Parts: sequence; C-alpha cells; structure tokens
Amino acid sequence: MSWARGELLGALLSEENAEALVVLAGSSRDPDLQPFVGGARLGEACVVAHGGGAWLVYFTSMEREEAARAEAGGVELVHPADFGMETLRREGKTHKAILAAAVNSAFERAGTSVGKVVLAGRPPAGSALALARALEDGDWQPTSGRGLMLALRRRKTQREIEGIAAAARTTVAAFRSVAGALVESSVREGEELWLGEERLTVARMKALAAQVFAAHALEQPESSIVAPAEEGATGHSTGTPDRVLRAGESVVVDLFPRGLLFADCTRTFCVGEPPEELVRAHGLVLEALEASLEAVRPGVRGWTLHERVCRLFENEGFAVPDKNPGTQTGYFHLLGHGVGYELHELPSFRKTGPGTDELRAGDVVTIEPGLYDPEAGWGVRLEDLVVVTAAGMTNLTPLPYDLDPRAW
Amino acid sequence: MSWARGELLGALLSEENAEALVVLAGSSRDPDLQPFVGGARLGEACVVAHGGGAWLVYFTSMEREEAARAEAGGVELVHPADFGMETLRREGKTHKAILAAAVNSAFERAGTSVGKVVLAGRPPAGSALALARALEDGDWQPTSGRGLMLALRRRKTQREIEGIAAAARTTVAAFRSVAGALVESSVREGEELWLGEERLTVARMKALAAQVFAAHALEQPESSIVAPAEEGATGHSTGTPDRVLRAGESVVVDLFPRGLLFADCTRTFCVGEPPEELVRAHGLVLEALEASLEAVRPGVRGWTLHERVCRLFENEGFAVPDKNPGTQTGYFHLLGHGVGYELHELPSFRKTGPGTDELRAGDVVTIEPGLYDPEAGWGVRLEDLVVVTAAGMTNLTPLPYDLDPRAW
Repeated sequence: MSWARGELLGALLSEENAEALVVLAGSSRDPDLQPFVGGARLGEACVVAHGGGAWLVYFTSMEREEAARAEAGGVELVHPADFGMETLRREGKTHKAILAAAVNSAFERAGTSVGKVVLAGRPPAGSALALARALEDGDWQPTSGRGLMLALRRRKTQREIEGIAAAARTTVAAFRSVAGALVESSVREGEELWLGEERLTVARMKALAAQVFAAHALEQPESSIVAPAEEGATGHSTGTPDRVLRAGESVVVDLFPRGLLFADCTRTFCVGEPPEELVRAHGLVLEALEASLEAVRPGVRGWTLHERVCRLFENEGFAVPDKNPGTQTGYFHLLGHGVGYELHELPSFRKTGPGTDELRAGDVVTIEPGLYDPEAGWGVRLEDLVVVTAAGMTNLTPLPYDLDPRAW
Repeated sequence: MSWARGELLGALLSEENAEALVVLAGSSRDPDLQPFVGGARLGEACVVAHGGGAWLVYFTSMEREEAARAEAGGVELVHPADFGMETLRREGKTHKAILAAAVNSAFERAGTSVGKVVLAGRPPAGSALALARALEDGDWQPTSGRGLMLALRRRKTQREIEGIAAAARTTVAAFRSVAGALVESSVREGEELWLGEERLTVARMKALAAQVFAAHALEQPESSIVAPAEEGATGHSTGTPDRVLRAGESVVVDLFPRGLLFADCTRTFCVGEPPEELVRAHGLVLEALEASLEAVRPGVRGWTLHERVCRLFENEGFAVPDKNPGTQTGYFHLLGHGVGYELHELPSFRKTGPGTDELRAGDVVTIEPGLYDPEAGWGVRLEDLVVVTAAGMTNLTPLPYDLDPRAW
C-alpha cells in the first residue's frame, strides 16, 4: 500500500521546483504529520516525502509498535537503529547533528537529489532552525512548506471524511445534551437559570458537552465556546466559567472537538422570552445560512458566498466587514473556513491569498454567519459543517436552529 | 504587576550573551507562550521579552478581550493597530514582512539593542524560518531558545504549582472511577471482564477517566494509556480501543490530563488472581517507588535515584537500561521527568545534558519505576507526581498502589 497523496505531492513539489517535503514534528498530533501517521502516537518524528513515497523517521525504539501502525498506513519506516540514534545520543551529539543524520538517512532511501526542500510541521522554533541549518550544510535550500502542506491536506480522503463525520455525529449528540439541560433548567431570582439545585454556569454547560466528547474518545484541544449575552457579542470570547446563564439572553455555543480530525458547529439559544432584536437577528442569520448552504457546490468561491451574506445584512442596516473593516458590531468575521487536521485550514473564504479559489469536491468547510451587538449585549451565530460533493454538499451537523431549546 | 520570571530571564539571557527572547506561537496553547499569557486564548501570537519585561503581540482585534486577560498577568500589549496589521494584510504583505513589523514594534517598546536573540515557541516550521530571516534582515542573530525556555519554565511559580495540584486532584478522582469500575466488573467466558451488560474494553476504561476530566474542564491533549497484558509489556503502547480486559492479567493505567498545566500518574491493576511473577514485580516496583520518594529532596540528582532503582532491579535478576542499553524486557526507561506546561520537561533524569543537575525546590517531577516482560505478557508501572520542596517533597497523587482494585 502506498501513501495516498503521493501524486498530489509530486505535482505541488514540481510547481515549487522542490525535490522533497520534510516534516519535523514534536509529536504525532502535529497536523502536518498526522496525514502520514494516522492515529499512531509518537514523540518527535520526521517525514521525508516526494511524489514517489514517504519515509517516517522515529527516534526511540520504545515507539516501534506505534511506528508500525503508521507503516500499515503506507509510509516506510526509518528506524532509530538505521541512523545510529543510540550512538549519537551516547556521544552527546547536538540536536542539529541528530536531525542531519535522520533526514540524510531518509533522503538516501528516498533517492532524492539535492535541491530545494520545503519544511513543514510544528517543532520547537529552535529545532526548525537547527533542521534548516543542517539542511543548508548539506547544500539543500530550505523554504517554508506551510502553503504546500495546507494545499496537500485540503482535499480530504474518504477515510478523513469519515473521521470528520464521526466527530460531527458526536458534536450533534453534545448539542442535544446542552439543549436538554437548557430545557430542564428553571428560572429563579434575577432571571438566573438553575439546573437541579445549582446555578447553570458557562462551566457546567461546557462540562456537559465535554462529557459527551469524552465518552466518545474525542478531545477538545482548542477548548469550546459558551458565550452568554455580552460575552457572545464580542464574537470570540470563550465565556467566563462562573458566569451564570440568564433567561432572555442569547448564549452562543460553539463546539469544535477532535478525533483524528476536527468537527465544528455553532448554535445560539435563548431560554424564555428573547428580545425582539435578537429574534430578528436570528432570523436573518438563519436566512443567510440557508441561502449559503443552498449555494455550496464545486466552482463557487467562498468569498462570493461571504459577499452575498454581507449584502443581505447590509440591506438590513447592519455594519459588515467588507464595507466597514474593523467593525465590532453587526457582522465582523468571514463566512467560513476549511476544517481538517487543523480547526482552520484550506479552503479560505478570504478575498485573496492561498486557498481562496473555488470550492472543490472533497473540501470540508464551515458556513457560519453571525450578527452581534456588544452595546445591546447579544450575539447570534449559526454554523454547520459540510462536505463539498460533486452534487453540492452533505451537511454533517443536521440539528435544529431554533433559539428556543424546547423546539429541539 | 510585572511578569514573574523577569529576573531569571535576565540571568539566562546574560549567560547566552543574548539581548532578548522571542516566542512565536501558533496559539496560546503553546507551552512556551503559556507562561506569558496564562489562560488567555489567542491564535498566532508573539512575545518579546528580556529581564525588564515582556511584550505580547497579537494579530487580530477580535482577540482584544483575551489579550487583556494576558495583560492582567503582567505582560504589556502590542495591539494589531500598533504595527498597522490591517494595512499590511490589505496590502497582501508576506508573512515574513508581517512578522518583521510585529517584532520590531515590540523591540522598540522593549528598548532592546540589536544582537543575539533566542527563538522559542512552536509555530509552523515555515513561520519559524520566516521569523529567523526577518530577524537576520534586521541584523539580529537568531539562535535556538529551546534550552533557555525549558530552564526558564523549570521552577514553577506558586500559581503554577496550584494549577498542577488541581489537575492532580482530578487525576486522583479519575483513578478512583477506573478502580471502581474494575471492582464492579464481573468475570465471564474466557476470563473476560464485563461491566453491566457489556465487555469492559480499553476504550471504556479510557472514557471513564475522560469523563471525570471533562467534568473538571481538563483536557487530554496527549491522550491516555490503558494497556492490558501484552500491550502494557511494551512500556508505551497506548492500548487498543476494543481490546477486552481479562481477569488475571496486568493493566497499566497512565493518565496525564492538562488544565493550564499537566499532571501525570500511573497505577497497575489486576482483577482476580495475579500470576506470581506479576505480584513479585509489583512488589519490587513499589519498593523502588517508595525508596525513591523517600530520597527526593533538593540536592539529589534524578540520575542518582534512577541508578539506585537499576541496582535494585538488577540484583533481582532483571535487565536494566544502564547496563543493558536498548533492552526491551525488565526495566527500560528513566525513573522520572519534570512536568509543567509540557508533559515532559526539565529537570531531566538523564545522566548528562540540559537539566540533569540536582533537583531543586520548585521542581515538579514524576517518579515512575516499572518492570515489563513482553514474552510473559505483563507490565507494571507505578508513578507519583511530586513537588520538590525545601523539606523534601509533597506528593500530589496520593492513591493506593495495590494491584487488586478491591483494596482501593
């Protein structure tokens, strides 16, 4: 079995006139290393790859079983003994010397000729510097592989889409749990929500979702957002743990757990009687979401969808980011982003720059319009996660959109 | 309020003849950025620091509230508007140009003179390369700050020790939950353990622990280990999810959740009648752990403690790593490691290299002897997490050591 993205990597390297990709990672949770190693758990690790294959270097024999899992996924292994790791360590060689031995061993197997090499991964900055200098010593020309790596990871494999869909199914369950708690809550003094004999705080809401994720072996490395009223109005406050939820206010719940890959979904709730302007904003955001979802298909640009939403909101009197850059009220973020081994990756919904071309089949993206009023103290965002398919899209987070959790 | 580690940073920079530390991070979960920003949640961010202070650069005004949290912890802020971020982005400037503008703005505030600068953080390798080149363009000499950063983070502040202790308390609760499940389980056909009407698998054990962590807002970015019999015998297999636990076999449970900082603890269980050699190994590992804990105090080297454990196990006929390097049976790892914003940090228990000096008050370390027999298919490891104090140590994971969960 050969590594799934070899052909694409070959093409991307050709475009850059580069001979090889080198990924150096502090652990196998590095989003640039994951496509090569799948679920294997490694410490520091390195991959050398080109159109013809991928070679995984690992650094301690204790990880041989985990490395073998990666091998089953199509990469070839360079074992620590293959480049004399024990000896290098015993002789107290520098990290730069160890990295040089490791990558040179992999280059030899890969049969690459010296030239330009693109670097990816997220090792400590000092290790990246050491690797770059080791490569320069061997007459390689290292350059940033960030763009290439994002392009390489953009189109999801079937297995990756299944991974995202699994995380999304659990996200749906987590929202059901959160909505259920809001329904069960009672309103007490000062409009505070209580669940059982305790106040319903941001922290309790986050814990409810987290327990669903935990039961399904998902992690939340980027945490989560439960942002009531004034906190939800700033767009990306994550929520103050001991803030008690209240009836009549908005609460933005944005969950983005990770299995092997991320999922991402947002809903906005209001227990009790919502203020009129919140109801109106929610209706507009839902209209924007539904129109955008309808328009998602290969060939459409994310920026085009974003602009349409800007026009819709502008016509209703809200400040919008393409006309009012830097606005902190109204609509002030992009309509969506790609999702994969990182929470934010390609394609981009920006106007220009890498990955701002047309949506393609195999892209996994969020659609997430929102409206916010920090002065009035409310925010509303609705976000679905979709796979772009030849026929249009498949929605991975089918959930109600209602403000009122009783409608769920 | 000024940043807590200014004095130490000044001394470490002097030792290296460097003018400043620059941390570049892809997010505020970067262990090199966390000491500067505490619990604030940021995307890409950068810190310039020296003995006189620390300046945090953030890149989008949407993060102003989170940045303000970091400011409350003692760093000064460089806002996106301070270096013309919006203009740079609008003009489509390169990442290198944006990083140059950002760090130069911070250097100006910090009043540093051009010279050697140490780099830390874990940005994408391409960003590290771009930063290094931007610095070189400004006549700075960038060098690895990995060692300096680890030395800077080694001695924990009171607040950090409290953070680790809180994570450790929840780890204790998670072990109680796991042990409880083993006690409640029943033995069915083929010695399989059942809990309720389902088999007790590795995945279910991990979920039990994960739910305790989730309820306390802890994450498990490095996952966890539940490794029965042959899987526990390799030392660091993380466990196959659908592997069913059986009576009479060892199961190594190693939990290492993170709040702001990590905790780390291991116990080994056996439901039913343990094989004689497992009981003997468990007794020896416990003896090694207790003797080591007794000996922990400022002035003792981790390597010295490790060697004593090697001698104890060697005298009982086991292969040991200082005499049999690369052995895959007996004892084959180090006795411990520092714990903090990373799961493995200084001090090191290795014989030589950075952080291998004597233990000091304020160090937080694990003590984790183990014995393994892959052929017989068992492993046993016991690990406590301790703070080194002037008087000796404080144990943060006070739990029973028994193989038999009924003794818990």
